Amino acid sequence: MAEFALIESIRSRCAVVRDDVRLGIGDDAALLAVPSGNLLAVSTDTLVCGVHFLADTRPSDIGWKALAVNLSDLAAMGAEPAWATLALTLPSADARWVDEFADGFAQLARKHRVALVGGDTTQGPLSITVTVHGFVPPGAALTRAGAQVGDGVYATGTLGDAAAGLKLFLPPLAGEGAEGGKGQLLVRLHRPIPRIAQGLILRGRATSCIDVSDGLVADLGHICAASGVGAEIDADTLPASPALGAAFAAEDRRAFQLAGGDDYELCFTAPDAIAPTLQRELADSGCAATRIGRVVDGAGVQVRDASGNPLALPHAGWEHFA
Amino acid sequence: MAEFALIESIRSRCAVVRDDVRLGIGDDAALLAVPSGNLLAVSTDTLVCGVHFLADTRPSDIGWKALAVNLSDLAAMGAEPAWATLALTLPSADARWVDEFADGFAQLARKHRVALVGGDTTQGPLSITVTVHGFVPPGAALTRAGAQVGDGVYATGTLGDAAAGLKLFLPPLAGEGAEGGKGQLLVRLHRPIPRIAQGLILRGRATSCIDVSDGLVADLGHICAASGVGAEIDADTLPASPALGAAFAAEDRRAFQLAGGDDYELCFTAPDAIAPTLQRELADSGCAATRIGRVVDGAGVQVRDASGNPLALPHAGWEHFA
Repeated sequence: MAEFALIESIRSRCAVVRDDVRLGIGDDAALLAVPSGNLLAVSTDTLVCGVHFLADTRPSDIGWKALAVNLSDLAAMGAEPAWATLALTLPSADARWVDEFADGFAQLARKHRVALVGGDTTQGPLSITVTVHGFVPPGAALTRAGAQVGDGVYATGTLGDAAAGLKLFLPPLAGEGAEGGKGQLLVRLHRPIPRIAQGLILRGRATSCIDVSDGLVADLGHICAASGVGAEIDADTLPASPALGAAFAAEDRRAFQLAGGDDYELCFTAPDAIAPTLQRELADSGCAATRIGRVVDGAGVQVRDASGNPLALPHAGWEHFA
Repeated sequence: MAEFALIESIRSRCAVVRDDVRLGIGDDAALLAVPSGNLLAVSTDTLVCGVHFLADTRPSDIGWKALAVNLSDLAAMGAEPAWATLALTLPSADARWVDEFADGFAQLARKHRVALVGGDTTQGPLSITVTVHGFVPPGAALTRAGAQVGDGVYATGTLGDAAAGLKLFLPPLAGEGAEGGKGQLLVRLHRPIPRIAQGLILRGRATSCIDVSDGLVADLGHICAASGVGAEIDADTLPASPALGAAFAAEDRRAFQLAGGDDYELCFTAPDAIAPTLQRELADSGCAATRIGRVVDGAGVQVRDASGNPLALPHAGWEHFA
């Protein structure tokens, strides 16, 4: 299968029609119209085989996740997704692999009406770089800077599932019970849900926001650094899925929740005056948020047990080259 | 060197201040303002070690070229460059390599006031994906569709130098005389000049345009396919640099000019009524354009000798997975 046929297959599988795409795939560049009164939000993320996913991961899951981790960045800014480019580096022109990959990518793209507007296919070790574009009104964007002492700290959904899923996926547990609860953990690992609707609810209202990709403590630490504040997490309040509770004992569970990456939930801060309204709206959106701590004077993240005593932190979040 | 330090080094070396960057590197996404009355042009290209460049290429040259091949796509659309994202996958956190890479990237970025607004660094086999963003007024963009029967076909600068440089760079010629003319061919290979100013002259006026990245015949073939026309090239009119003429005999030279990729000159079509004006303005810009053929009825590209007889084509342009 030649490069042209690969591109054509991806293009046709990922077709999403948008008026703001004036010229799509097939020329030297796409031509796109940003609606007036909006800023453009742009983010890019790479997935490398053997680093971010294992070689035997289903191609459709890789396609989904390559887009999901990028859309999650837009969600964390409170941006509405619009367009993506896809740079796909493949060891060989495996048409079936590419078709399945494109189907997974397209499944998520259609859900959020994301048009694939350009890309590049090259021969080389398997990796995928996606760049996403979205819209956000000036002043409404959620950044990492803005958390105020006294704000509550919140997390959407549940934490730790993806890291637990990875543990199940890796030897020696691999293959054990993909049914039931364990299957749900694997789905969290392979098919993360970018919290787009929740970011749109929070924008212009939360004081800061980040997506939990590297682990809660590490990512909340980024908010603290950017905002010039500290934060305390109450370990016993961290939201856990029933599947996580069923599959792992308390200590493992807590480590996954505090340091496990890849959940792609939103961690945000908000003043008490608006928090109940935000929590109600988030619950109505199908993804409730839990209060997990508070913003304090100082720097860095502290974790406390039910009695308020500091807990030692599990290993830090994901760091390349560490 | 940890990931954070790598990113900080790249960020500081690539600092370009622009008012339209409302939020740059360091949050979940960049926030950018497209000037009103403009479309956004977006393009992405990947360079893979061992495929698009050799492992012993200077890091600064790789940095320059990774941006240049992308800016060349904006040039071919007649777009004015504004922003770039950089996804850098590295086998190890080699600080010196990264610094030199960033310096080469920044050298070209500063020339065109391109702000680096985001990116990702990951561990894996060396490859670089850049996504560039530029502005173009609606209706003025140069596309591949629009060549009219009777138009002249033109090329900026000179053709074949980069392919000749690659030949010199590869064994058994590697190391021979990087001085003088051969050095100039290597510069064309390693430090291509995106024809941004020339694209801006042509926009709204040329009937079609493409950058010569895969080889003249292949790229002009894309114009023909998109425009529903054919084209004839007069082989003896192809612009050659003195260095190319000095280093290679006529037959090799012609093959490089017709099928060699990586020159990143612009190939465009224009009606005779405006061609002299365009050619004068391009010459004044420091990069003259040569008339190399004409648009004809039919399909595909034919090459003719000085007597008008068809020439057999050299091997086709660059095609991955071919």
